[in-house]
Amino acid sequence: MLVSGIPYRTIRLHGESVRIIDQRRLPWSFDLLDLHTVAEVAEAIRDMAVRGAGLIGATAAYGMWLAAREAESPEQLHRLARSLILTRPTAVNLNWAVHRQLAAIEAAGFENRVQTARATAEAIADEDAAACAAIGEHGLALIRSIAERKPGQVVNILTHCNAGWLAFVDHGSATAPIYAAQAAGIPLHVWVDETRPRNQGARLTAWELAQQGVPHTVIADNTGGHLMQHGLVDMVITGADRVTRSGDVANKIGTYLKALAARDNGLPFYVALPSSTFDWTLSDGVQGIPIEQRGGEEVTHMEGLAENGSLQTLRVVSPGSPAANYAFDVTPARLITSLITERGLCAATEEAICALHPRQSPAAGPPTG
Amino acid sequence: MLVSGIPYRTIRLHGESVRIIDQRRLPWSFDLLDLHTVAEVAEAIRDMAVRGAGLIGATAAYGMWLAAREAESPEQLHRLARSLILTRPTAVNLNWAVHRQLAAIEAAGFENRVQTARATAEAIADEDAAACAAIGEHGLALIRSIAERKPGQVVNILTHCNAGWLAFVDHGSATAPIYAAQAAGIPLHVWVDETRPRNQGARLTAWELAQQGVPHTVIADNTGGHLMQHGLVDMVITGADRVTRSGDVANKIGTYLKALAARDNGLPFYVALPSSTFDWTLSDGVQGIPIEQRGGEEVTHMEGLAENGSLQTLRVVSPGSPAANYAFDVTPARLITSLITERGLCAATEEAICALHPRQSPAAGPPTG
Repeated sequence: MLVSGIPYRTIRLHGESVRIIDQRRLPWSFDLLDLHTVAEVAEAIRDMAVRGAGLIGATAAYGMWLAAREAESPEQLHRLARSLILTRPTAVNLNWAVHRQLAAIEAAGFENRVQTARATAEAIADEDAAACAAIGEHGLALIRSIAERKPGQVVNILTHCNAGWLAFVDHGSATAPIYAAQAAGIPLHVWVDETRPRNQGARLTAWELAQQGVPHTVIADNTGGHLMQHGLVDMVITGADRVTRSGDVANKIGTYLKALAARDNGLPFYVALPSSTFDWTLSDGVQGIPIEQRGGEEVTHMEGLAENGSLQTLRVVSPGSPAANYAFDVTPARLITSLITERGLCAATEEAICALHPRQSPAAGPPTG
Repeated sequence: MLVSGIPYRTIRLHGESVRIIDQRRLPWSFDLLDLHTVAEVAEAIRDMAVRGAGLIGATAAYGMWLAAREAESPEQLHRLARSLILTRPTAVNLNWAVHRQLAAIEAAGFENRVQTARATAEAIADEDAAACAAIGEHGLALIRSIAERKPGQVVNILTHCNAGWLAFVDHGSATAPIYAAQAAGIPLHVWVDETRPRNQGARLTAWELAQQGVPHTVIADNTGGHLMQHGLVDMVITGADRVTRSGDVANKIGTYLKALAARDNGLPFYVALPSSTFDWTLSDGVQGIPIEQRGGEEVTHMEGLAENGSLQTLRVVSPGSPAANYAFDVTPARLITSLITERGLCAATEEAICALHPRQSPAAGPPTG
């Protein structure tokens, strides 16, 4: 996508190194960072210079190319692989990308490790971008059908958190239909939930949309219900962190509240995700998906830009009062109009999800997710 | 209520002046401020050193005592009264308190204006405190019945924004049942929505509860639905800014989302209010109640305490992205379990509300609200 009018991916090869966007500095500053060693890649993942399921997977894949160059033995390659996996142990795509690299290198032979790992990393990144582009095309059809019902009027889309291109290699999941609709000339406006406590909406989604020239407005997370009551929202699109085989969606905390408001106002609520986000081992998301609790200081303190241009952190909660910080919630499948995957749309039901992923249907044997 | 163990009201007579808590400085600093002239009272209301419906009314009432002392003629008294009303023209209680003072002075005779205004101001403040205390007793019965269903366990209450004693003369509306239950020895814990964008929950409600020693935890506004799904909330109590005769509730933006989550999880959702909050002229709240839009800078910027102890303001939204700031939303009556007023509980229906307020029933003639 565009940054200051120039097309970028969130990650790419750059000579002998891997070039990423340092997302810790966004939106205050756009800085590229070149990673030269596996240790630098691990640090970038651990410290969230890169974040988002798709991008973490791609970064690990490129990290394995550096690992292939550093390793003088298969044992050393496995040690470096393990150092990457340990950076964020719960990130499903990270583990998957590293093991895909190890399998590819084993199949090609250790002596061909560098060119194999490089080709595999490029393939993983390209597949991620292609999946998001396909999500965009499928979602575009939904936006187009709303636009046709209100010709000449702007389609208002509400989104929560950042499921944008910054979380993937390109296009994003929730944002892909928006960018596709913009390219198709459909007049759009996006309501961007600021997404407390980490403000990924106000910081990242707002920045992305501004760079692409998509009209948008940042709102407090409290606002969506009021907008829906007054006809100011046509559809909701969010991303997902994990989706069960029955269609329950774990996503950034607060997603569930917007799904409730959409249902109460008869509005469609869509979740966009690459199929790699399905967890085939789980059915009941509310009971089955563990919800990460992060430090209370993400609630009690807030980072921002001071008037003198410096980044500062302030306490915004009454001193002495404790805070809790649940990172995700689960939106039950019954509240979801449709899932938007790279394979097409499907209802948030086990039957429809498995029909779109035949290898995962109960008749096909144990989950292979 | 208590501050550092000492009982306070938010406003009281102090010699020849009116003593208030300067709420602009809370929770970072607890400062009392003595107002000596009508001009100082007007400035305190305008600049939100005092805020909240009940407290604004009481402050205007005490301001009229100062006006009675300053005025050398009925004309001058009316000019001073008007200067108070103009400070926040949409505040219903302010207008009501000033006109009650003018009527009392007219009835008693201009020469008795000072002692009349003083007695009326004290009566208005006492009535506000007594109404909140009665709300507390009625709400206590609700909390007690939950406590009896889970003996020995903590009752978890979620609240949004600040409908605490800081918004009234004493006790508060949503907090009054909580303080009454604490006094009755019922084990309690309060989830405090931070309440973006102005953070009245994180700043004021958290401070109040800490000063009273009520266990509480501040959460991002996104969190309540998740807590309800997991049995971590027993009831919701909020305040109200305006309630229609059919029971629709205008309150701080985001209240509607919590009411939806309570219904989806089969939890009771209560709204606590003095009867003066009813707007007898309105039935349909969603269509009829105008929603104030405030400046976007309340969303894009945030005030807090820097490490060096200074108060600072940071930009927290991507520079160049616009923000919208709707201050209130309307929770439809169908989502409300019960209203808690100083006259007792009542269903959020026109029939029940009018039964509790016979002078306002359709048969009683035009609204007198």
